[in-house]
Amino acid sequence: MSSGLHIIKIGGNVIDDDIQLQSFLEKFAALQGKKILVHGGGKIATRIAADLGIRAKLVDGRRITDKPMLDVTTMVYAGLTNKHIVSSLQKYGCDALGLCGADGNTIKAVKRPVRKIDYGYVGDILVDSVNTLNIKKFLEAGFTPVFSAITHNGLGQLLNTNADTIASALAVSLAKIYETKLIYCFEKNGVLRNVDDPESVIKSIKADEFETLKEDKVIYEGMIPKLENAFDALGKGVKNVYIGNALNLHKYQQGEFGTCLLSK
Amino acid sequence: MSSGLHIIKIGGNVIDDDIQLQSFLEKFAALQGKKILVHGGGKIATRIAADLGIRAKLVDGRRITDKPMLDVTTMVYAGLTNKHIVSSLQKYGCDALGLCGADGNTIKAVKRPVRKIDYGYVGDILVDSVNTLNIKKFLEAGFTPVFSAITHNGLGQLLNTNADTIASALAVSLAKIYETKLIYCFEKNGVLRNVDDPESVIKSIKADEFETLKEDKVIYEGMIPKLENAFDALGKGVKNVYIGNALNLHKYQQGEFGTCLLSK
Repeated sequence: MSSGLHIIKIGGNVIDDDIQLQSFLEKFAALQGKKILVHGGGKIATRIAADLGIRAKLVDGRRITDKPMLDVTTMVYAGLTNKHIVSSLQKYGCDALGLCGADGNTIKAVKRPVRKIDYGYVGDILVDSVNTLNIKKFLEAGFTPVFSAITHNGLGQLLNTNADTIASALAVSLAKIYETKLIYCFEKNGVLRNVDDPESVIKSIKADEFETLKEDKVIYEGMIPKLENAFDALGKGVKNVYIGNALNLHKYQQGEFGTCLLSK
Repeated sequence: MSSGLHIIKIGGNVIDDDIQLQSFLEKFAALQGKKILVHGGGKIATRIAADLGIRAKLVDGRRITDKPMLDVTTMVYAGLTNKHIVSSLQKYGCDALGLCGADGNTIKAVKRPVRKIDYGYVGDILVDSVNTLNIKKFLEAGFTPVFSAITHNGLGQLLNTNADTIASALAVSLAKIYETKLIYCFEKNGVLRNVDDPESVIKSIKADEFETLKEDKVIYEGMIPKLENAFDALGKGVKNVYIGNALNLHKYQQGEFGTCLLSK
């Protein structure tokens, strides 16, 4: 087991506000040790698609990615957003390396099989999707990989892939090489006991407590898949998972960051 | 001096036609040894800019890059085109790694000083622009860097940069480490003695012959800066420079490719 690795996922709301994004990136750059950033796309892709006359289709909160929308997400996630983040991190002294899953064949997904819904060019991550060998080369050479939520199928097809899932898949795979901690950053201070009170952060949640919190409707909607991803990662060798406010990342190494999820 | 390195620049016309592009990429993937691909952007950026209501400004054949146009070129060159090329190369068994100059701080340019014309967010390459140390890390680790024509200034600003210039700057800098050959691929079979006869390829041109060919107007317009770049690279340690048809790249290693430029 080599030294530690932090994998940090940053969500859309922070990306949409450049002042918040810069504040987060400066804190991310200051985080010691090996690290990987995974970012979503924010609302820019939807806005640019609309400006291009392409309508975003959603089914059950999931984006349907037809060919024009795949092109837009590739442009925005892997181009505009990824390179803005990378050049900003370089400014803060972090040797960032922007990647999509095709770069260095780092993440190879499969096009989601069509069942009830045809999601279009959406990639599902499999057990062996992550090329830990190549990602390790980047980390050991001193680079900080910055992943956009675009993968490929190895046959020349790019695929749009959920960023939370990419973050947990990276964490699970790299946990075999590094002591890996996964941090989901978003706009809230953590998992809240009372959604109207931003200070009501639940400091830690064990897997069995998660079930109770779901039953009691304390945790609901978009938070459920995020936490399910997180507990799944814990069950597969990831050392710790945290969920908290992107702008509080500087408090992480003082042990004062968001909600810590525990396998038991 | 380590082993050899090929740096290959592919121009816009081939990028705009996916059948030609795939044919070229398959040949590029088959090229033995260490290699780097540099690509321009093609007409897609201009088309997408127009669809977004952004008008492309040209002065003396040079693109003026205002902020909206920088965003479009970043999206298209570093996102859409770069990732399409990278995922295609992966299909052909080449472990491609898409980069802009901000990635791994590989190419740091300066914003072009405003004199008669304000070119906007255009980056000029300086003597120490190329980070040979980091590019060497990628090459030695078995990756094939694929550069889009976007650089950064190290202070968080992305810059649009001429792809021919990037190719020659990479070649000159990396010639200190590798025996480096530079190949400009475009849609013609080489430098032609008669522009109307595609078979009238001049097999080789020495630096002093170049001056005569310019005076005789055999070489003119867009070909002049391309060849000046090339002879400049030869004068600074690059072993050979070739100019030829992208679709003939498979003939290169048989010694039957385009026009070879010679320093003397």
